[in-house]
Amino acid sequence: MSPAYFDHNATTPLDERVLQAMLPFFRERYGNASSRHEFGRAARKAVDEAREQVADAVGAHPSQVYFVSGGTEANNLLIKGAAARLQPSQVAVSAVEHPSVIKPAQELREHGWKVKKLAVDHDGRIDRDEAANSLREPTGLVSVMLANNETGVIQDVASLAELARDAGALVHTDAVQALGKVPVNFPALNVHAMTVSAHKIYGPKGVGALILDKRLDIKPQITGGEHEKGLRAGTENVPAIVGFGAACALVASHLASNQMQMRERMDQGLHAMGAVLFGNGAERLPNTSYFAFPGIEGETLVMALDRAGYAVASGSACSSGGTDPSPVLLAMQVERELARCAVRVSLGRSNEMSQVESFLQVLQDEIFKLKRLAALAV
Amino acid sequence: MSPAYFDHNATTPLDERVLQAMLPFFRERYGNASSRHEFGRAARKAVDEAREQVADAVGAHPSQVYFVSGGTEANNLLIKGAAARLQPSQVAVSAVEHPSVIKPAQELREHGWKVKKLAVDHDGRIDRDEAANSLREPTGLVSVMLANNETGVIQDVASLAELARDAGALVHTDAVQALGKVPVNFPALNVHAMTVSAHKIYGPKGVGALILDKRLDIKPQITGGEHEKGLRAGTENVPAIVGFGAACALVASHLASNQMQMRERMDQGLHAMGAVLFGNGAERLPNTSYFAFPGIEGETLVMALDRAGYAVASGSACSSGGTDPSPVLLAMQVERELARCAVRVSLGRSNEMSQVESFLQVLQDEIFKLKRLAALAV
Repeated sequence: MSPAYFDHNATTPLDERVLQAMLPFFRERYGNASSRHEFGRAARKAVDEAREQVADAVGAHPSQVYFVSGGTEANNLLIKGAAARLQPSQVAVSAVEHPSVIKPAQELREHGWKVKKLAVDHDGRIDRDEAANSLREPTGLVSVMLANNETGVIQDVASLAELARDAGALVHTDAVQALGKVPVNFPALNVHAMTVSAHKIYGPKGVGALILDKRLDIKPQITGGEHEKGLRAGTENVPAIVGFGAACALVASHLASNQMQMRERMDQGLHAMGAVLFGNGAERLPNTSYFAFPGIEGETLVMALDRAGYAVASGSACSSGGTDPSPVLLAMQVERELARCAVRVSLGRSNEMSQVESFLQVLQDEIFKLKRLAALAV
Repeated sequence: MSPAYFDHNATTPLDERVLQAMLPFFRERYGNASSRHEFGRAARKAVDEAREQVADAVGAHPSQVYFVSGGTEANNLLIKGAAARLQPSQVAVSAVEHPSVIKPAQELREHGWKVKKLAVDHDGRIDRDEAANSLREPTGLVSVMLANNETGVIQDVASLAELARDAGALVHTDAVQALGKVPVNFPALNVHAMTVSAHKIYGPKGVGALILDKRLDIKPQITGGEHEKGLRAGTENVPAIVGFGAACALVASHLASNQMQMRERMDQGLHAMGAVLFGNGAERLPNTSYFAFPGIEGETLVMALDRAGYAVASGSACSSGGTDPSPVLLAMQVERELARCAVRVSLGRSNEMSQVESFLQVLQDEIFKLKRLAALAV
């Protein structure tokens, strides 16, 4: 039996229709999109079409879509690129941002910026009053994610963007985890810039986009040729861009709302077993359950479940190199000991209710075994 | 009849064996290489194996291989990342470098660096005596390409690296165009860092590597997760990395030396038609002919040949957005008018002698037609 994949927030399987769209660009249509001949023009046309598909998926104009190598690069480009065009002041990011937002923001200190982490409540929601207070300080740049990768908690970005704009700041949202799971509309979010990524929406790894208000002047971070209107040099990754477009075209008809029933069953089962559910009181992505069994280390449980045929995560894949408790949970005032017990289940298109049911049974067995082991060890 | 592709320096067709190696990672092995479960471990193993394949192809150690999104990113990472760890002094790059080296070098001016362009002779070779002279000035960083993308001219990098090391500078080479066409050996080149890219060696677009002397401390340019030992954040592009490895494994048995005979016939035919051949007196890649017919604009000839079924380039794909004459040719003291007439033919694995013969016939016809048109226009 092949393992059940419950880690769609880390990455998603490539949709076979997306792969089929990509294959011609791996085979006969292999041209460099910057070449003038027939091979090049075919590649250029495909890139232009994909740009329209990505724009359509988020209600943007194709000219606002800049392709980069992924979400991390898009976040770096926006934070560093926008800051380079501003006088140093304060950069405000939520305390639960992805490391690819937090680290670039922290690097701005070298250039005279102050970093403000916007506090979140126990459910992981940014505190609007505290944010308003923080933005009394002169602020050039604000970045707040649309949905958190660990908890799935959704922020009221439009409202925070209004605060930021009132404070005269540029505002960016990392929508990598939201796209494909809930509706994402660039104009409605009221931000100047937004990050999206293909491999979280059943598209290929290695491609993402920065959606950018055309009036915004940001400094390119990777320079060379005049690709992407001079904002990002490097031969266009044509097959991946085509795949990103194809994945975006499938987004509207495949939102994760049909996973809500499975997630509710998951949450109910976890609750019945005595799990602590994180972000439970906030609006969350319909596919994510983030929980802990006090006293059972997350990493240990992940390994036990892996052996039993279930792929789940402890914290985010991006920080899985370390054994520190999740900074997201610490920001939510979760105690360190409990934070170390965190496990994330993120459902996806391929999952079925029967997998959730069998997972809950296996989980109960594993919890029982691990508790017994813990008792023996005392 | 499908067009003949003579533009392998812009990009190469993906080798079908490379695609076959990639496909499992688009399908069942779709995990995030940073995930701890079975899907993640399978991806990690594949990335590690590809790292060995890339290292093997250039005589490096796997720990010296850092995957990035392509050659342009690798060049940016090295130039900006190395400079960030040094006191500002002089950065010296050859006058014929790719824009992804020249532009990052020029950006260092903002941080107090002086930029020295190392002169080349009429054949496009870096003048060693002038370079030695330039390096009397305190110099922190030197970057000289191994083979030029337009002319195919090969530099004596090892000798220039010796000069640079004697001057106390770090030295980097952009080997993107050399790899797969001539033997490339990282230790023998005597450099601290080297750039390679997959899509120039029949591998996928969207992946490249910086080969880095382990003793070198460079500042990451894209930050977030701890991928690539903290040097480059972002979910690993597993299928592309696997494809890069597979393409590297094929390199040794497919050097472009078997294209030498075709290139000689090409050069001889061009010469007989009255073409000026650039870089003709220097050692060149065995696949590249760069030439001009005085009075016939390169762009016009490229379009005519495209209609006739032959994909060739005028200058490099990276600068094809502009109509300025090639800076590479200008650095070689080619007159602007003649530089505007430049056309590049770059052969590859898929080409056959019969294509070269028919190309030369078609070219003769097109030259005749264009000359007649030019005469009528006077």
